[in-house]
Amino acid sequence: MEQRLSIVTLGVADVARSRAFYEGGLGWRVSPASNARIVFIQLGGMALALYPSAALSEDAHVEGGDAPAFRGFTLAYNARGEAEVDAVLAQAVAAGARLAKPAARAFWGGYSGYFADPDGILWEVAHNPFVTIEPDGRLTLP
Amino acid sequence: MEQRLSIVTLGVADVARSRAFYEGGLGWRVSPASNARIVFIQLGGMALALYPSAALSEDAHVEGGDAPAFRGFTLAYNARGEAEVDAVLAQAVAAGARLAKPAARAFWGGYSGYFADPDGILWEVAHNPFVTIEPDGRLTLP
Repeated sequence: MEQRLSIVTLGVADVARSRAFYEGGLGWRVSPASNARIVFIQLGGMALALYPSAALSEDAHVEGGDAPAFRGFTLAYNARGEAEVDAVLAQAVAAGARLAKPAARAFWGGYSGYFADPDGILWEVAHNPFVTIEPDGRLTLP
Repeated sequence: MEQRLSIVTLGVADVARSRAFYEGGLGWRVSPASNARIVFIQLGGMALALYPSAALSEDAHVEGGDAPAFRGFTLAYNARGEAEVDAVLAQAVAAGARLAKPAARAFWGGYSGYFADPDGILWEVAHNPFVTIEPDGRLTLP
């Protein structure tokens, strides 16, 4: 098994509503491979997919059910500076996201806040002075 | 906001147990930026993080609680062929994963199965003949 991740698929309540948030609100380009049932968005060398939550649990052969308040994972967008953290959180809120945690100084030396997308999926928006964001957007760990 | 994802953070019950699965079981290299509290793994241009679930929900200012049977998302590893799907699922099960769905022909024309990691986090292992996996592991959508 190679050391990589290909796709993060978010189980959503309404694919059209989620597409409007990511495409119209955040301004991300949607792949032409998308349709009314599933949306694909290229994110660097991997992809984000938006798919009905009930269909996703069925496909994985697990019990579905209502989305919990906390799904047990977060996605993170690492910004190039603190001003970009504020700008991205403001853009997400203008696009209909809920500000789950206003940006604040973090105990680990960075600056971070969270927004929740239309399904309550949490995105951390952070500036971490110890992590490198390459010009093309790739993140490089030590 | 640029079109990219920096980090997927999995809220886990036991960081040491999860590290043993991903590092010892799947054979992935852990970043030296890791410690007993949090583990970072470079995956292409982004990173996977393993962090205690209770600390993650607290950091995001959301209600925590026990992990649901279905967390509402899946991660996917796209393989280069059907034989690699079988091999990766076998490797994950040997490392302690639960085979949530045995590999089978999928309605969309591919071949796919799922394993659940020690916290029940679902990884789809799939061969999709319509998606390109570059030599360096990057996924390219149409």
